[in-house]
Amino acid sequence: MTRPLHSEEQFLAGLFPLLGSDPSVLVPPGDDCAVLRTSGGSLLVAAVDQVILGKHYLANEKPDRAGRKLLARNLSDIAAMGASPRWALLASATGPELDADWLLRFHQGLLAHAREHQVMLVGGDLASLDFGAVHSLTIFGEIEEGRIMTRKAAKIGDFLYATGSFGLSFPSQHHLDFSPRLAEGSWLATFGVKACMDITDGLLRDLRRLCLASGSLDALLDLEVIPRRSWNGCSASEREALCDGEDYELIFAVPADLAAELESTWPFATPVTRIGRFLPPGQGRIRDAHGTDLITLHGLGFDHFESSRDTTGKPLGHD
Amino acid sequence: MTRPLHSEEQFLAGLFPLLGSDPSVLVPPGDDCAVLRTSGGSLLVAAVDQVILGKHYLANEKPDRAGRKLLARNLSDIAAMGASPRWALLASATGPELDADWLLRFHQGLLAHAREHQVMLVGGDLASLDFGAVHSLTIFGEIEEGRIMTRKAAKIGDFLYATGSFGLSFPSQHHLDFSPRLAEGSWLATFGVKACMDITDGLLRDLRRLCLASGSLDALLDLEVIPRRSWNGCSASEREALCDGEDYELIFAVPADLAAELESTWPFATPVTRIGRFLPPGQGRIRDAHGTDLITLHGLGFDHFESSRDTTGKPLGHD
Repeated sequence: MTRPLHSEEQFLAGLFPLLGSDPSVLVPPGDDCAVLRTSGGSLLVAAVDQVILGKHYLANEKPDRAGRKLLARNLSDIAAMGASPRWALLASATGPELDADWLLRFHQGLLAHAREHQVMLVGGDLASLDFGAVHSLTIFGEIEEGRIMTRKAAKIGDFLYATGSFGLSFPSQHHLDFSPRLAEGSWLATFGVKACMDITDGLLRDLRRLCLASGSLDALLDLEVIPRRSWNGCSASEREALCDGEDYELIFAVPADLAAELESTWPFATPVTRIGRFLPPGQGRIRDAHGTDLITLHGLGFDHFESSRDTTGKPLGHD
Repeated sequence: MTRPLHSEEQFLAGLFPLLGSDPSVLVPPGDDCAVLRTSGGSLLVAAVDQVILGKHYLANEKPDRAGRKLLARNLSDIAAMGASPRWALLASATGPELDADWLLRFHQGLLAHAREHQVMLVGGDLASLDFGAVHSLTIFGEIEEGRIMTRKAAKIGDFLYATGSFGLSFPSQHHLDFSPRLAEGSWLATFGVKACMDITDGLLRDLRRLCLASGSLDALLDLEVIPRRSWNGCSASEREALCDGEDYELIFAVPADLAAELESTWPFATPVTRIGRFLPPGQGRIRDAHGTDLITLHGLGFDHFESSRDTTGKPLGHD
């Protein structure tokens, strides 16, 4: 092996220039979903995501929960765009560890969650592996013109908001049982929010992506107010809240003059918290109220790809 | 393991009743693609397919050819519906056997083929495996109202036609280098053909699927005229032509009174051959001109899923 795959982002940075462009692609790869215009003029959103045995779920996990998680991860991407999910296609490659009953229950868990959100499973492929299991799901949704939220639209001075709470997703099982923020995302798009993303790889890592996509803005995080998930009587540490990942919450930018209205009209039981502010362009640096560079302090959090690929390095934030 | 996965078809027969129905799904799973109606009224087609290291391509295969194959397999499904491909999403889970250069060249091969057919790669996901590699691609296309070809529309007395030739796909490398029959499929849909499918799992196995979907028609195959692929100076045997699989040709039904016009106006260099005829409903039996039941004689051909999963049995047609 001449050049190991250290980072998904590094690989994608080399790949994206090869993709070309087309008038039908309104939002290209690099956001939570691509946005596409059909010949009829309507807009689609599309994303693909995988779950892998031993990584996103354990061999002794209940198969219906693993299936639910795969769909919910994809729905979280749809939520981040402000779109409505419609159709899904599922490819499964499974080894002899998983039998036909397991695979059927995996589908049943996925389908039960699909019914909750009016998503139709419209295609699939099954293949066999010698070992292990990989399931990939492609989700398609629809969105109205002018309601698209992306990672590119945060502005200097916008407040940074987050739904829900952060950290301890794995021990608390939140990573299996979370509710994708579809209603919240749709409401935010209607309210007029333009910059949004979902948090899968940790608040620090994903916020940095939002900052970089929005013209390399810096951001200030108010560490005191970031809601931390509790589990087993303990609240997440600062580092766990910033770096654990798999929170599946939305973060979004709100112009300062709309913040009071957003807070007073927010119609959900889901907490919404102002956790920071966007600063003038730097290099996507994220600091706390004392000026401490949080990425230098904590690292970038958990890169699922890197951590399980590069066995020479410890996953950051999990040391 | 209590119940091994012997057959994809057996599993799907249990799954399909759980999928439910929705007015937006015009053609549900079970055909080459699903057909979906957007809120704007236009029609989409969608399919997903996988290639797996060691099964669909070998570890020493050139990565660009493996990437091309993954897209071409999906394009063959689009061709079978008479649709035009538009967008694709790719998920790759790879182990340490494949490095970053390999994966980049895999993408390059796929993207070069995508450019040939004006397909945009609009989404992806990368994950790491401990061992092996799985790549799944979802393809989306568009189709006009009234031009959809399915597996359900063959009628008693229709002639059975096929593009190209059959057998020896693996030794001849046809399985890597084939041209998906997109132009041919689109022309057939415009001509008015209503029943079509692509041949991936062998002519016998796939023709039987077409027969069963069209009201359990029987079919007659004219063995003398089925074009056989040649490789290394030898022509495929009868069994190889019927059972090898990965031919990626189209078979389709043509009402007898349109057959002469179809043959005289066929505009492609690709051969088109009348290879049989649809008979009154039986149980999807396929026989030759002497009345021999070809499935009894040869078996159903190659089930990729079954043959590599069930190590206790030999793949049929490969003995």
